[in-house]
Amino acid sequence: MKRTSRDIRTANRYEVLRQIIAASPTSRQELAAATGLSLATVATLVGELLDLRMITEVGFEDSAGGRPRGLVAVNASGGALIGVDIAETYVHVELFDLALNVLARADEDMRPGESLPEQVVSHVAAAVGSVVAQAGIEGARVLGVGVSVPGQVDRATGVSEYAPNWNWHDVPLLDLLTEHIAYPLYLDNPLRASAVAELWFGAARGRGDAVVVNLGTGVGAGLVLGGGLHRGVSNSAGEWGHTTIVLDGRLCRCGKHGCVEAYVGASGIMLNLRELSPDSTLLHPEDQTATIAALAEGLRTGDPVAVKAIRDTVKYLGAGVADLVNLFNPEVVVLSSWVAAALGEPLVAEVREAVARHALPRPFAATEIVLSPIPTDPVCLGAATFALEGALQSVGQRNAKRTTPARSRTAPPS
Amino acid sequence: MKRTSRDIRTANRYEVLRQIIAASPTSRQELAAATGLSLATVATLVGELLDLRMITEVGFEDSAGGRPRGLVAVNASGGALIGVDIAETYVHVELFDLALNVLARADEDMRPGESLPEQVVSHVAAAVGSVVAQAGIEGARVLGVGVSVPGQVDRATGVSEYAPNWNWHDVPLLDLLTEHIAYPLYLDNPLRASAVAELWFGAARGRGDAVVVNLGTGVGAGLVLGGGLHRGVSNSAGEWGHTTIVLDGRLCRCGKHGCVEAYVGASGIMLNLRELSPDSTLLHPEDQTATIAALAEGLRTGDPVAVKAIRDTVKYLGAGVADLVNLFNPEVVVLSSWVAAALGEPLVAEVREAVARHALPRPFAATEIVLSPIPTDPVCLGAATFALEGALQSVGQRNAKRTTPARSRTAPPS
Ligand SMILES: [Zn+2]
Ligand SMILES: [Zn+2]
Repeated sequence: MKRTSRDIRTANRYEVLRQIIAASPTSRQELAAATGLSLATVATLVGELLDLRMITEVGFEDSAGGRPRGLVAVNASGGALIGVDIAETYVHVELFDLALNVLARADEDMRPGESLPEQVVSHVAAAVGSVVAQAGIEGARVLGVGVSVPGQVDRATGVSEYAPNWNWHDVPLLDLLTEHIAYPLYLDNPLRASAVAELWFGAARGRGDAVVVNLGTGVGAGLVLGGGLHRGVSNSAGEWGHTTIVLDGRLCRCGKHGCVEAYVGASGIMLNLRELSPDSTLLHPEDQTATIAALAEGLRTGDPVAVKAIRDTVKYLGAGVADLVNLFNPEVVVLSSWVAAALGEPLVAEVREAVARHALPRPFAATEIVLSPIPTDPVCLGAATFALEGALQSVGQRNAKRTTPARSRTAPPS
Repeated sequence: MKRTSRDIRTANRYEVLRQIIAASPTSRQELAAATGLSLATVATLVGELLDLRMITEVGFEDSAGGRPRGLVAVNASGGALIGVDIAETYVHVELFDLALNVLARADEDMRPGESLPEQVVSHVAAAVGSVVAQAGIEGARVLGVGVSVPGQVDRATGVSEYAPNWNWHDVPLLDLLTEHIAYPLYLDNPLRASAVAELWFGAARGRGDAVVVNLGTGVGAGLVLGGGLHRGVSNSAGEWGHTTIVLDGRLCRCGKHGCVEAYVGASGIMLNLRELSPDSTLLHPEDQTATIAALAEGLRTGDPVAVKAIRDTVKYLGAGVADLVNLFNPEVVVLSSWVAAALGEPLVAEVREAVARHALPRPFAATEIVLSPIPTDPVCLGAATFALEGALQSVGQRNAKRTTPARSRTAPPS
């Protein structure tokens, strides 16, 4: 899609709120300096956010030789946002205030075999009900619920087009959720959720071009390009997990051979370990989480099998990340999701070395490679951020419908 | 880099001129409808283009029930643009009028061993002098010269950071050219030149997301994302030729193993042919152009060795293009550069089939795969377009320096 002036307007609204959340209290002048927007534009956008009670006036500061400047801050209690991370084996839900502090959490385990949409939906509904009850807030204050589901998603229609783990095809997930959940719902996938979390609150904040590499059971790359999320023409950009790294190589669960995911996803890593040492005590054949945890512990203690298994994995991962560096020439590559979090800095150090060998020297020199700095579940945070973006976008739509400028309390935006 | 409001302003100026070039004569109302910009914004941008004499008023058309509408058209003779395509074995230069018609062409062959910057610069200077003389125009009417050089380029400083074919490192090419050429100069590389040519005049026109796959001696992908060129943080995005398709595979001239370019660049294709049939008469060992021409002729006549050699190549090319489809989810993939042009539609048909096997079904279904429709050298056209963009951008900079609005004949842009 080409970016229209309305897209730019929405992006500017995001940018101003992002900045206020990061640096409350702050003045319009500071916001203009930090965002590069004109003071008039900032004043308009701040007016909209005040109208929405997402931010509040919190006093004045002296400015050298001028009038005192009004200060604004995020109104943490001005609303609540819910993020839902639907994964293969669990549903994790967090409720946030508007400063994106976690107020409540709920988890539901999914048993093997529980793969029907209705089963997943009832877990989500239970967990959403739980966080609202725990937080003790009125339903009216929930601005929205962002839902992340693996696979390919049509956000406009709320359909899970394809979820490889459950073999879902064209499941109308948002319609099913609407029967149980009364709040505005926003559907997307974990790649985009973790990318938007980095863009708003993590290592991609203030960056133009960033790649968020998700290393979990599934593998993919969330793309921040030109300061915004790159979705592609049908919202499926970033399927790096199914790019070819070894032509005619290992069979991948997508049915192709030699995909990145077949070597560096959790089950790919287990296979690397099994090929290296079939009887290793690190290997928990039916339990990805336990195996990755054992490898992480082995890395810390210098267990030679763990070190070698990770090195074998990084041979593929380094080449795959180098491909992203060569293609996108990003400012930063962020390693995210649970496998990256579990293996931590030792993994990142190995990846940096391997990317140095595989990438072209100049784009490599221009790229940082870091672990996600987000302390909570980035997918939940990102899903909640989609709900926040949805709430901010609906402002724009309301404003666009106002035909008489007199109803608008602020000047027209530049 | 993040897009600023000035970037948007510049992009809008491009978009309006693009539309006028494509559909002269046209009215401001038609331009607003075609670009999605407001009539006020279009009027401002048209005013700027009239001031620059890039377009002219050409009369009026009746509008149903309203005032007659002023028509504008591109002022073909309002200036000239020069595009320079520096390749491994030749320098090709074209001079265009502002409607991007070719008025003159010049070629210089480079002999093997001619790889010093000064040698290349003197060929460029001779060819540029030749096209100006042939076209019989005054030097003052040349708005600029766009220069494409292979490898990694710093456009801001005009330095060829790395040209693998000649082993150039940090050659100050623009400074060297300035000693011989008095016109404004713009340096970039063939990936971006061919992408911008598709964006302005080819298969990416009006598209948000497009990937321009360059198949020549070198191989790479020019990226059109969000309606503009994606350059990356250090102007080196698109190095698809050096992404890994066969881990530990063939040695590439970049020093790594298993790069896409090692299998699908002109010399990779020659190697595929040699592995298939070492004594084939199609093979001209020292001549890439002759070998590719022989393969193209063999494809047309159904020569089994030619057909098999291309099929072997497409095994790699299809997987590599599928990676681009999975990662970018583009509306269109355009096959460009001389190898693609020589092999033509038979190649495209094979590539489509191979990508269908390798890409995820949904992004594949959303993507067209086409041959570049540009009838002239896309790199020359794209390089000339950089000069055109440069001329349009300097307007913006002039306007930005105007501090008193009274000096501006048009209303401030929205
Ligand atoms: Zn796969
Ligand atoms: Zn290479």
